[in-house]
Amino acid sequence: MASPEIETLTQALSRLPGLGPRSARRAVLHLLKKRETALDPLLAALTAVSQRLATCSTCGNVDTADPCAICADPRRDTRQLCVVEEVADLWALERSRLFPGRFHVLGGKLSALDGVRPEDLAIDALVSRVASGGIDEVVLAMNATLEGQTTAHYIAERIEAYPVRVTQLAHGLPVGGELDYLDEGTLAQALRARRPVA
Amino acid sequence: MASPEIETLTQALSRLPGLGPRSARRAVLHLLKKRETALDPLLAALTAVSQRLATCSTCGNVDTADPCAICADPRRDTRQLCVVEEVADLWALERSRLFPGRFHVLGGKLSALDGVRPEDLAIDALVSRVASGGIDEVVLAMNATLEGQTTAHYIAERIEAYPVRVTQLAHGLPVGGELDYLDEGTLAQALRARRPVA
Repeated sequence: MASPEIETLTQALSRLPGLGPRSARRAVLHLLKKRETALDPLLAALTAVSQRLATCSTCGNVDTADPCAICADPRRDTRQLCVVEEVADLWALERSRLFPGRFHVLGGKLSALDGVRPEDLAIDALVSRVASGGIDEVVLAMNATLEGQTTAHYIAERIEAYPVRVTQLAHGLPVGGELDYLDEGTLAQALRARRPVA
Repeated sequence: MASPEIETLTQALSRLPGLGPRSARRAVLHLLKKRETALDPLLAALTAVSQRLATCSTCGNVDTADPCAICADPRRDTRQLCVVEEVADLWALERSRLFPGRFHVLGGKLSALDGVRPEDLAIDALVSRVASGGIDEVVLAMNATLEGQTTAHYIAERIEAYPVRVTQLAHGLPVGGELDYLDEGTLAQALRARRPVA
């Protein structure tokens, strides 16, 4: 139907979450028709991100610099550390603008089903950050899923020997819900009402 | 929240049809996390298309070559010409694989409301193609909207002096429907049952 280049672009777009083959085709047509206002800016933005993409070696955030903008920001409260499963969760919390501290991205959650063990996540790195001191509170902001809560309890046990307050998000989260899908009001409520791990 | 480069990319993606701010953010996260399998292929595909993007000077199709793959294909029946409003409609018909001829993209439809006049569309170019001979049939494949049908009637009048059979898609199309949204079965039926303009 179309040239191989256009087919390849359609396929690359259709693999993005939220786009299927049909919507990818519409997106490609939009890009082809609006070269100056759609294709060129997207290409420039992708190129810029691709050239400077970096994973923060401190917190695991994905950014265009290492350390990331959050770790490098002197206004962030270094005594508060929020542990999240994924970068998407970090971004979701940042959108609520309620957490003044820094983050630690685990890169997933413990899962017997998927064979994810503690050594597959950035848990040792988290313990090191806590052990090196300067942190008063660790907020465990895992998803309210079984695996998320298992991960939270495992981490709480790993760092209970250190002189830090360990809290978790209040269970205003709907059961089974995932952070990145929540509205910011619910997130804000859950963050404000966070409580010590029992 | 994120670096300016990532924000720019999110905005560029959110302007694509079918993606809003939230789904664009998810798509960006996916791209950042799957650099080798998502970001790099998309960047390469966009670059390839951007470098070779061309509008076919014969039919108005958007492709990576001029003439486009359809106009350059010697197996296409040059005696049949299908006139469509937009490139999206051409692609929709190509997906049904039932039309063996070539195409002519008008670039829109006549619209008093939007101030689109005949000289704003590729109608003169169509008349020239018909006048230059070698065409037996012109299939008017406009959308089954008021404006699409007005456009079809206008074109039928403009080319009635030439020795070509002028047909239009059968009105198996649902009223108010647009080609690009139809399933291929309906499109195929409409194409098979095309009939002369009364």
